[in-house]
Amino acid sequence: MSLLQYGIGVDLGGTTVKTGIVSSDGKIHSQTVLPSLADQGPKTVIAQIKTAIHDTLKIVDGKTITGIGIGAPGVVEKEKGVVKNPPNFPGWNEVALGEEIHDSFGVNVEVENDANAAAIAEAKFGAGKNYPNFLFVIWGTGVGGGIISNGKIYRGPSGGAGEIGHISINFDGPRCNCGAKGCVEVYVGQRHLSMLAAQRVAGNPRSKILEFCGGDLSTIEPLHISQAADAGDALAQDILVKAGKHLGIAIAAVMHTLDFRVSIIGGGISAAGKYVFDAVTESVKSHVLAPMRKDILVVPAVLRNSAGILGAAGLVL
Amino acid sequence: MSLLQYGIGVDLGGTTVKTGIVSSDGKIHSQTVLPSLADQGPKTVIAQIKTAIHDTLKIVDGKTITGIGIGAPGVVEKEKGVVKNPPNFPGWNEVALGEEIHDSFGVNVEVENDANAAAIAEAKFGAGKNYPNFLFVIWGTGVGGGIISNGKIYRGPSGGAGEIGHISINFDGPRCNCGAKGCVEVYVGQRHLSMLAAQRVAGNPRSKILEFCGGDLSTIEPLHISQAADAGDALAQDILVKAGKHLGIAIAAVMHTLDFRVSIIGGGISAAGKYVFDAVTESVKSHVLAPMRKDILVVPAVLRNSAGILGAAGLVL
Repeated sequence: MSLLQYGIGVDLGGTTVKTGIVSSDGKIHSQTVLPSLADQGPKTVIAQIKTAIHDTLKIVDGKTITGIGIGAPGVVEKEKGVVKNPPNFPGWNEVALGEEIHDSFGVNVEVENDANAAAIAEAKFGAGKNYPNFLFVIWGTGVGGGIISNGKIYRGPSGGAGEIGHISINFDGPRCNCGAKGCVEVYVGQRHLSMLAAQRVAGNPRSKILEFCGGDLSTIEPLHISQAADAGDALAQDILVKAGKHLGIAIAAVMHTLDFRVSIIGGGISAAGKYVFDAVTESVKSHVLAPMRKDILVVPAVLRNSAGILGAAGLVL
Repeated sequence: MSLLQYGIGVDLGGTTVKTGIVSSDGKIHSQTVLPSLADQGPKTVIAQIKTAIHDTLKIVDGKTITGIGIGAPGVVEKEKGVVKNPPNFPGWNEVALGEEIHDSFGVNVEVENDANAAAIAEAKFGAGKNYPNFLFVIWGTGVGGGIISNGKIYRGPSGGAGEIGHISINFDGPRCNCGAKGCVEVYVGQRHLSMLAAQRVAGNPRSKILEFCGGDLSTIEPLHISQAADAGDALAQDILVKAGKHLGIAIAAVMHTLDFRVSIIGGGISAAGKYVFDAVTESVKSHVLAPMRKDILVVPAVLRNSAGILGAAGLVL
């Protein structure tokens, strides 16, 4: 007889809603993907979520489900399962998503912010399994994150803890959309990196970045910069090293605040690999106090696209 | 019959050791102050602590004592009551202070880092009584602090949480003693402020700062800058406003990390009053994301010199 538990994980994104059956050993047994149809408003989105859950439940195959966990963008009031103003979900405002799903399926439903869910996934099943305390960073279009303290998610009083993208690393730096100056997101967000690369490649047309982006500067993505860096392109390496240095400064601020040593980095840009991770590590080490340095660790997240479902299911496992 | 409890608080500093009887309503009933004789090594310091506790116990007057709490500089291993490398205590290295005191007095002894003890004091008896979550900042020669989360001290895995002095607010900023660039302490620490004021007053001899420091630029202290600011001196106001702005950037980083809204500022410079507090508040507000702004609160610590004893006693009350 197996001692495994099974839960349903729901990963709600602006484009798709993904559901899966997850066992307590971190395996996804079956997955459903539907369009979230966010532009058609909350009713349609909720209907899509329910359909996806139904489709997944069909293949549960007699197993008892401990509940349904949902990772959603936006601010989540966890106790009430309410999701507030998720970006890219027009007309949403506040929706009692937990109640809606509970009323339809009659099982325990837990809702959590998607960044926190991904942090939970890495803690339970991923790169954080051996680290009771770490900062999880999502490094993509923006910079977000979550905090695992003593093996548990630290949400903060209103669920927004670990959102490090708007830590200022230079009070004289460029203006951010948020109104402040020098937010780390302005230096290392995907859009900024692509723009910066385009500018620098324009003045340096021999850079291999041009090759990897197919010759069109407007299509440069961090992956291209990373590919060029791996192929020995000095400009690409320089861009990634600087980005890593800048992110490391914000991470060091968190290490000091929380007395942490470990950060785990996921999200699109983290796929850029060695150059970026070496630079982030070096930067965190050089920005924390000497006694902390030897224990500083910056490691890549391992769960990638499945972090959402795993973390959501982790809420009920 | 009174329901009050009584504990002994010990505030160990580089110059003095202070002990006091504290009741659970936050009153100090009697106080003893002895020189800590730090330069004579740990044995002498421990003897001074014991003498101070003895002197205080003499006047306990039949009350039952719940224990002895000690606030000490340096890194404190709380479980073992070990104090490591307190600055300005030569020859100290690691001392099992908790055990030493317990062996002599046979009561419960708790040892905590002094910044954390002061944070606990503000939480239990001071400006933080109504705030379950806040960052406590000690703003003096350096910048230190402590974190109160859900009404309790958050120490972090090794007791160093809340030490925000080396958060970099400008990666291109001046080099700090710690090796990194742009640490907030370099911008707002007491020594820096005094130096900055001396330089600016030298080029602006009409500033009232000169009056308040008695005409000797080398003796300028933040208090003089504050007095001049209160007397309408524009230069003094500018220095304090800039300092407040810089400190606010580091505080905002912590607000984002922890999802906090409140900070309580103590330490010598916090006595500089209104100009500084207005500037810090303004800066924190302008460096956090818009939805957080309306709840941002920066308030002065209220316990001043007695925070050490109260927080230490708070460990056993």
